[in-house]
Amino acid sequence: MPTDEQKPISRFPVPAPETLPEDLREVIEANAKKAGFIPNVFLAYGYKPEHFRAFFHYYDVLMKGPSALSRAEREMIVVAVSRVNGCTYCTVAHGAALRILSKDPYLADQISANYRAADVTPRQRAMLDFAIKVTERSAEIEQADFDRLREHGFTDSDIWDIGAVAAFFNLSNRMASLADMKPNREFYSMGRG
Amino acid sequence: MPTDEQKPISRFPVPAPETLPEDLREVIEANAKKAGFIPNVFLAYGYKPEHFRAFFHYYDVLMKGPSALSRAEREMIVVAVSRVNGCTYCTVAHGAALRILSKDPYLADQISANYRAADVTPRQRAMLDFAIKVTERSAEIEQADFDRLREHGFTDSDIWDIGAVAAFFNLSNRMASLADMKPNREFYSMGRG
Amino acid sequence: MPTDEQKPISRFPVPAPETLPEDLREVIEANAKKAGFIPNVFLAYGYKPEHFRAFFHYYDVLMKGPSALSRAEREMIVVAVSRVNGCTYCTVAHGAALRILSKDPYLADQISANYRAADVTPRQRAMLDFAIKVTERSAEIEQADFDRLREHGFTDSDIWDIGAVAAFFNLSNRMASLADMKPNREFYSMGRG
Amino acid sequence: MPTDEQKPISRFPVPAPETLPEDLREVIEANAKKAGFIPNVFLAYGYKPEHFRAFFHYYDVLMKGPSALSRAEREMIVVAVSRVNGCTYCTVAHGAALRILSKDPYLADQISANYRAADVTPRQRAMLDFAIKVTERSAEIEQADFDRLREHGFTDSDIWDIGAVAAFFNLSNRMASLADMKPNREFYSMGRG
Amino acid sequence: MPTDEQKPISRFPVPAPETLPEDLREVIEANAKKAGFIPNVFLAYGYKPEHFRAFFHYYDVLMKGPSALSRAEREMIVVAVSRVNGCTYCTVAHGAALRILSKDPYLADQISANYRAADVTPRQRAMLDFAIKVTERSAEIEQADFDRLREHGFTDSDIWDIGAVAAFFNLSNRMASLADMKPNREFYSMGRG
Amino acid sequence: MPTDEQKPISRFPVPAPETLPEDLREVIEANAKKAGFIPNVFLAYGYKPEHFRAFFHYYDVLMKGPSALSRAEREMIVVAVSRVNGCTYCTVAHGAALRILSKDPYLADQISANYRAADVTPRQRAMLDFAIKVTERSAEIEQADFDRLREHGFTDSDIWDIGAVAAFFNLSNRMASLADMKPNREFYSMGRG
Repeated sequence: MPTDEQKPISRFPVPAPETLPEDLREVIEANAKKAGFIPNVFLAYGYKPEHFRAFFHYYDVLMKGPSALSRAEREMIVVAVSRVNGCTYCTVAHGAALRILSKDPYLADQISANYRAADVTPRQRAMLDFAIKVTERSAEIEQADFDRLREHGFTDSDIWDIGAVAAFFNLSNRMASLADMKPNREFYSMGRG
Repeated sequence: MPTDEQKPISRFPVPAPETLPEDLREVIEANAKKAGFIPNVFLAYGYKPEHFRAFFHYYDVLMKGPSALSRAEREMIVVAVSRVNGCTYCTVAHGAALRILSKDPYLADQISANYRAADVTPRQRAMLDFAIKVTERSAEIEQADFDRLREHGFTDSDIWDIGAVAAFFNLSNRMASLADMKPNREFYSMGRG
Repeated sequence: MPTDEQKPISRFPVPAPETLPEDLREVIEANAKKAGFIPNVFLAYGYKPEHFRAFFHYYDVLMKGPSALSRAEREMIVVAVSRVNGCTYCTVAHGAALRILSKDPYLADQISANYRAADVTPRQRAMLDFAIKVTERSAEIEQADFDRLREHGFTDSDIWDIGAVAAFFNLSNRMASLADMKPNREFYSMGRG
Repeated sequence: MPTDEQKPISRFPVPAPETLPEDLREVIEANAKKAGFIPNVFLAYGYKPEHFRAFFHYYDVLMKGPSALSRAEREMIVVAVSRVNGCTYCTVAHGAALRILSKDPYLADQISANYRAADVTPRQRAMLDFAIKVTERSAEIEQADFDRLREHGFTDSDIWDIGAVAAFFNLSNRMASLADMKPNREFYSMGRG
Repeated sequence: MPTDEQKPISRFPVPAPETLPEDLREVIEANAKKAGFIPNVFLAYGYKPEHFRAFFHYYDVLMKGPSALSRAEREMIVVAVSRVNGCTYCTVAHGAALRILSKDPYLADQISANYRAADVTPRQRAMLDFAIKVTERSAEIEQADFDRLREHGFTDSDIWDIGAVAAFFNLSNRMASLADMKPNREFYSMGRG
Repeated sequence: MPTDEQKPISRFPVPAPETLPEDLREVIEANAKKAGFIPNVFLAYGYKPEHFRAFFHYYDVLMKGPSALSRAEREMIVVAVSRVNGCTYCTVAHGAALRILSKDPYLADQISANYRAADVTPRQRAMLDFAIKVTERSAEIEQADFDRLREHGFTDSDIWDIGAVAAFFNLSNRMASLADMKPNREFYSMGRG
């Protein structure tokens, strides 16, 4: 069976990290320091430095910036959306992030199999239902969807954030599938305890 | 966050193992011995002993009986089909089986994310394409599908087996979702190396 | 126009009945005696005797075994499911069975055209809606589906049986389409009165 | 089980035939004479006489007017299209017409189950593939579709006619489902030999 | 960039207007007088004069005949249905008609983008929801759909008309896509004020 | 008929421009100067200034930054993708941009109706086919898609850009539908003549 070590991590040229602009290298080093390895998405996006900057800045705003959604909840959205889009990189890498942030070794696999059967609270279920509607039928979003989220205590700001994270991964999933990005092997086992 | 220990393993009544007929208990014990725990599917199916017998006998014929498909290949089909049907129990439990039988800790997660991007041989890719067509568009199966499989060396007998495993899990996935069967926690980490 | 007499009844090799193992021949003879002819599904499954045994045993448990669903109701499920999957053999052969068991020469054609417009009771309509959800969107089955069935008087045991018959024909339809099984001509007119 | 005799033949008011304008009565009588009964579609369309006139005139042009497609071939298209749209009236009534015109008691049931598995010639298969594309994905019709039909000997005029019959029954199926038109019981058994 | 002036207005032969039968020329002249140009659909349908007569007569009954639906409302239905079917000719030509009849230069573009987000009254929204259900899922039309329309004051006659206009454009859209009919350039800017 | 002037331009609170941070106001003023009015998307995104910055920076990189795709070609992708997602704001606003950049008053309406029937070159058709595959079936992107694009002269860099623009508008369309953003009335008629 072929190993993914031998496979390219992207369909596009992947620059050697040391040839990248200074600011990209700093971002990569900071992330590598935290993860213990360089996540392949950074190398793949190195192909177009301006795109790298825009993508990861937007990513940081949404996934690490201020929001009433916990970081684990944002990762739940990411995993649920990535399943719909069949994105291997995001399912595996953000599955790892969700395990770590939620301290739950089971939740990511449950959400990537079928979020409707996952061990989540009714409030989280409503959040994921909405994220999936944003993903699959955004043209049909209506007042009733907002009403249901408000019943679970979500504010306007929260609803925007749920939608924004879901929308961003509808971009991210497509870029990862476009490039056929390969998840680093480390992600598969991280946070399994 | 609720734990799945506290959640019922089925939407239907689950009999205590010791109340089951002798032959069911023997099947369960043999499987528990091998796995190190009683997989929940046996307890859930204990609700209707005649169904238990018919289901597991058919399962054994297909998954353990003679076939030119390796047992790992059969599990690859199961994981790919279970993803299409969004079946949590089968994705998690057979993901574990695939990791163990293939001795590859990555393959199951790749196939459950997107089999088209998984590290499989072209022959295995053709096998999975066919299993997915059996799952999603069986009314459109035609001679050209058989021709493509034969180009990869699959015989009539192999094609029947690919189709039969895919068809069986189109039953199994639906029963597991019907009952909302919960995978045992052990499955999530088995075979991860 | 080609006649189906000249067409093979399966894409796979079909053994002569007399070459089959004793127990298969007995099953076939019993069924032929009842129907007045050998239904082609028995010959097609004769290709793999172990599969034959497992398939028809499971079939008998579900379709002839004890259940609060009448045999006509089970056939209604089969016809509705087979339409979704576009399975010619099951639509035609089980249409005949439904005509005979229901003593209604119209119902099978109505259900195979559009079960929502068929002459069924509200209780049967709920049963068929659930069977179709099991077929098309099993990952979305939820408590509300069970509640609706209970309002119509269905018990846990009944719901399991509706789901199990629907699930089994999601296997059976795929096997018949895989093999391109041809219905015997007798089925088309049986029970039309 | 309720009988369709007791059920209304339309969701809309159905005028008594004798109250209809003279020209409608003539059309109905001519058709009743031929069929041996008044097909319900005439009564249902009697609700709006101007619509009746326009509908049946267009129908006659397409289904009885000059065309290189035989009348049986046109009915094959009708049955295939009606299955996609799940139209009970058209499937049953035009199934009867197809049995009679083709002198084949099996073909209609085969096409309504799955036209891809029906006993048709490669030329008829190409015709039906195109009719279904007109039904399901008309926005994707392209030169290659015309080329394939021409390889089977279809002319421009034939292709227009295949498309026109398919398009008309995309209207007709929707009107019949809108009104929940009930097929006369006679249709179910006509032409079964 | 190629210009549509240079492109044929149909995939089928287009007769010179002066070679058409007298009655067709009269219809065309009357329409050309009103529009200021000959809409291409008349020329394209000139390929089969009997089809021309049947099509435009039915069209006139539905779109210009008596109905409690205003002519602008009927055009709203046409634009919404044509979007679902991806029909360029009908979207552009009936978009123009809707702008003129509604005296609203924005509404047609809104409905062709997403009718759910268009500036329509709740009553019109219910009308369009039903027209789209007739288009996309006519086999699922049920009493509840009629009830909702009646709550908005629609009568049986109105509901038939909504359904009939939607059904007719499910024919018309398919014919226009079959022929790849090109909208006259004048339509794009008519009624934009 | 309600006017969109009276309707809110977003489901979320919209800050008065003068209350926005200096850098946002500069972006808005620069854009207003160019367009002659403030496009509503800037006001709607003003709800979350950090999101505003990230969104419009990424937008500028993709839509105005260096690329071998012309700006008109990028807008063609935007309009085609926005149609699939049913996004009113993007269809209308980027339709205007496409008319202006292409100097073609017809192309945007053609692409938003059905890009397959639009007046585009074979090379542009391949570009749009790929953008739509990125939108609808990104998990199925494969080598053959890249090969087809290369036959039309697209380089790796071009393919990345086509994919990136399509992916970005899969984010943008969802944000606009989430907020129910209303296009400014000026967009409807810009570039028409």
